[in-house]
Amino acid sequence: MCDAKKGHMRHAVDLSRQKMDEGCGGPFGAIIVRDGTVIAEGWNNVTSKNDPTAHAEVSAIRAACEKLGTFDLSGCEIYTSCEPCPMCLSAIYWARLDKIYYANGREDAAAIGFDDQFLYDEVAKPMSDRTLPIEYVDVPEARDVFAAWDAKEDKIAY
Amino acid sequence: MCDAKKGHMRHAVDLSRQKMDEGCGGPFGAIIVRDGTVIAEGWNNVTSKNDPTAHAEVSAIRAACEKLGTFDLSGCEIYTSCEPCPMCLSAIYWARLDKIYYANGREDAAAIGFDDQFLYDEVAKPMSDRTLPIEYVDVPEARDVFAAWDAKEDKIAY
Repeated sequence: MCDAKKGHMRHAVDLSRQKMDEGCGGPFGAIIVRDGTVIAEGWNNVTSKNDPTAHAEVSAIRAACEKLGTFDLSGCEIYTSCEPCPMCLSAIYWARLDKIYYANGREDAAAIGFDDQFLYDEVAKPMSDRTLPIEYVDVPEARDVFAAWDAKEDKIAY
Repeated sequence: MCDAKKGHMRHAVDLSRQKMDEGCGGPFGAIIVRDGTVIAEGWNNVTSKNDPTAHAEVSAIRAACEKLGTFDLSGCEIYTSCEPCPMCLSAIYWARLDKIYYANGREDAAAIGFDDQFLYDEVAKPMSDRTLPIEYVDVPEARDVFAAWDAKEDKIAY
C-alpha cells in the first residue's frame, strides 16, 4: 500500500472525526483527488443542514463539481472513510469517478447503527417485494415528455 | 385511481416538461406531498447546476426538508415522473418518505438513454464484480472514529 493512498485516507478519516466533533452529523468524511491533488472535501451534514442526502460522498461530489465547473468527475478518485451506501455508490457512478477507496466497511457501519445492508437488500429487490410502497400512476403525458427529450436537438447528455 | 393521485402526477410531469424546455437538465420532475398539500417541487438540474446528484427526486427531497426544517419526511409521499434510479430510491429511504408514485418506468428511461438498469445491476453486485474499481485502505483510525460515535452521548440519530 503506497503512502499516498494512506495519506489521502487519513485526510478523509480526519475529516470524519473533526466534523463529527463539530456536530455536523454522522462520523463520515470523504475527499476527491485528481492526479494526487485534493480537489474537494465532504462530510456528513444530514442533521445540521437538514438534508438526508448530505452524506460525505455526495457532499464531496457536489463540492468537486462546483469547484471544477463540471458534472463529470472522470479522472478523479474518491477516498471515503466508510464504504458508500447505495445512494452514495450510485452518485459516484453518476459522477463518473474512476475509483473508490474506503476504510470502514458496511459491517462496521451496521455495528454503530447505520444499516446500509438493509438498503442494499431493498434496492436489489423487485419493487413489489420492498418495504417501501410504490405505485404506478398512468399519466400518458409522461411518455410524451420522454419522446420530446429523445427528439430534442439541443439537449446536453449526461 | 383517484383524481388526486393523477393530479399530483400531472404536476410532476408538467414540471419535467417545463424544466426540460428551460434547459435545466433531463426530463424528470417530482413533488413531495403531505396530507394532500404540495410541500416542494424538484426537477433535474444536473447539467445546468453541474451537480450529478441533482436528480428530480433528490432535489425535491432537499427542497422539502429545507422548507419543513427537518431531515425526516415521514408522513410525506413523493410523486415522480419516472421510477427513481438507485441513488434517488436510496435517498427516498433515507428521507423516510411513506410512499412513491411514478409514471414512466426504468425501461422507458432506458429507451431514451438513461440506463438505470445498469446501475441497479451494479449496486446489487459484490464489490469485486462491479465495473467500478474499489479498494480497501487500512487506516485503523477509521475504526476509532466509529467507536467514538458509538460512545458519543449528544449525538443526533438519523
